[in-house]
Amino acid sequence: MPLPLEMKALLLVGDGYARTPSAGALEAMEPYLQPGRIGVPAPGPTQALIKVSLASINPSDIAFIKGQYGQPRVKGQPAGFEGVGIVAATGDDPYARSLEGKRVAFATGLSNWGSWADYAVAEAASCIPLLDTVRDEDAAAMIVNPLTALAMFDIVKQEGEKAFIMTAGASQLCKLIIGLAREEEFRPIVTVRRDEQIPLLKELGAAHVLNEKTADFETALRAVVKAEQPRIFLDAVTGPLASAIFNAMPKRSRWIIYGRLDAEPTVIREPGQLIFQDKHIEGFWLAEWMRRFRDRRGPAVLEAQQRFSDGRWSTDVTAVVPLDEAMAKVPAELARPNGKVFIRP
Amino acid sequence: MPLPLEMKALLLVGDGYARTPSAGALEAMEPYLQPGRIGVPAPGPTQALIKVSLASINPSDIAFIKGQYGQPRVKGQPAGFEGVGIVAATGDDPYARSLEGKRVAFATGLSNWGSWADYAVAEAASCIPLLDTVRDEDAAAMIVNPLTALAMFDIVKQEGEKAFIMTAGASQLCKLIIGLAREEEFRPIVTVRRDEQIPLLKELGAAHVLNEKTADFETALRAVVKAEQPRIFLDAVTGPLASAIFNAMPKRSRWIIYGRLDAEPTVIREPGQLIFQDKHIEGFWLAEWMRRFRDRRGPAVLEAQQRFSDGRWSTDVTAVVPLDEAMAKVPAELARPNGKVFIRP
Repeated sequence: MPLPLEMKALLLVGDGYARTPSAGALEAMEPYLQPGRIGVPAPGPTQALIKVSLASINPSDIAFIKGQYGQPRVKGQPAGFEGVGIVAATGDDPYARSLEGKRVAFATGLSNWGSWADYAVAEAASCIPLLDTVRDEDAAAMIVNPLTALAMFDIVKQEGEKAFIMTAGASQLCKLIIGLAREEEFRPIVTVRRDEQIPLLKELGAAHVLNEKTADFETALRAVVKAEQPRIFLDAVTGPLASAIFNAMPKRSRWIIYGRLDAEPTVIREPGQLIFQDKHIEGFWLAEWMRRFRDRRGPAVLEAQQRFSDGRWSTDVTAVVPLDEAMAKVPAELARPNGKVFIRP
Repeated sequence: MPLPLEMKALLLVGDGYARTPSAGALEAMEPYLQPGRIGVPAPGPTQALIKVSLASINPSDIAFIKGQYGQPRVKGQPAGFEGVGIVAATGDDPYARSLEGKRVAFATGLSNWGSWADYAVAEAASCIPLLDTVRDEDAAAMIVNPLTALAMFDIVKQEGEKAFIMTAGASQLCKLIIGLAREEEFRPIVTVRRDEQIPLLKELGAAHVLNEKTADFETALRAVVKAEQPRIFLDAVTGPLASAIFNAMPKRSRWIIYGRLDAEPTVIREPGQLIFQDKHIEGFWLAEWMRRFRDRRGPAVLEAQQRFSDGRWSTDVTAVVPLDEAMAKVPAELARPNGKVFIRP
């Protein structure tokens, strides 16, 4: 298959990091991305060049293009952390060559050649050859969220308490964790911003679903915390909501921040709780988890693929937007609740 | 020695915990304490009754009488967590009886019979028979601060970086830690609020002393942090100062809160640092440390006594206030910098 010399891509406008914090919502594409044509990259010795079939949009992508992520932007490079596609070329490394022609899920990681483009580059070690039973929509979102879900649910299991709390409960990530929790009879307590999300998440396996926008939210939260004694708080939001939840939690609770959807100040309401109640505040980053728990990565990837194959997990699709229309359509599609948005080159 | 039936004491006015946070300063005694006469308590089987020679006033005492400490107040009981005195009576337990007539340093802990009184009750296990070489002023402050200093410096040593940061650098506790650090060639970076404290603390062994009240404080802080790469932050203050320090610290830093001298909101300026830089926020409480590290307590107590005997440590005395004059004089004495205030029954 001859490769073209040029390709279409959504290219980063900013460089490095942003100087000011910003919230998780994407108000518009133009400040951060521009559509362009760029040379098709050549894979390095241990890399694969993938003809992208479908690319996912994760909250971490939004944070990254805005300069709010833990990795600097390189101006003019394509954005997009993960996707699915066919390996079109590889480097000389034998494992990389073994992937030639295969359909793979991939994460671009540090290659700086993102998935929101006709072609992407990924380390061969970050490519997962796919079973035919896995849909493109599941495969395109099979690394970032599923591994994060498995890794963070590991933390919940290690702590031992059956109940735990999550903000942004209707996110695709939280739905995966709720699925894991139900199988092992754990009791997720999740917050949402819309009443209509409550029955959906209860059906999936959430023990309690609290609407953070209701007037009696803090009262309801305190009652649930008292009854369930959750010690792990997986937080995608920060700001006043997360402060209130952590404040209500019992002794030895851990507030684990993995996202920053609210740019409002994040206050430790009662620092005395850290002194006298042995409460902790920390973070979770998948890249760091993968570095520390290399042995866990392979089994986790296999487990994710099996779960998508047999239907225990399934990706809710809000929209599949053609690459040519992404600049115009993505922000509005992302603003719709309850599912993922994809880009199709 | 016949015991009197009644004694003088400073009695707690409040009960349980305060509902609103308050700063570390003691604006007046009256809202929290009243002088009174109360029956001399009888020691329980494993306890000692101590005729108090000298009682110390620690920041934790102030937090406690204000209802800001991790232990509820019992209205009408004497305040005061530690002191020195002569054991006047004991329970039937053989170890307790062995202390009869001895001069001991003591911590009242959970006995609820504090040291700001003619007599106090302490668990015999919390009484330290004293070498003659230890002054009353050192003995009366030989448990809370010295054990906290040794315990927190253990945390610094375990982390491994030679440089570390402390707020409230001119406190008696920080001076003890600076002494420990100098011996092992660690590099304390401390903050103070008065320029005249700078040469004093540098002479004791601080590598850097920064006045938090100067206009260029944050610039100076960033330069020092960049040069020294401190990873442990021992914080007695919280509020905006501590937020700024933690924000400036490098990857894998730990903000360890042990006091709350500033009641202003404590903001996590960049929650993304917890995610992407593996930074942590936690607390330190001596009571919890003693519970977890029982084996470390005995050697730490012995080390403290030796350090006070041979002059490596010495308690700076601001004032010794007679119990009868404490209501009127203590707040003004506490407001003076650079030393400890004692109450003499």
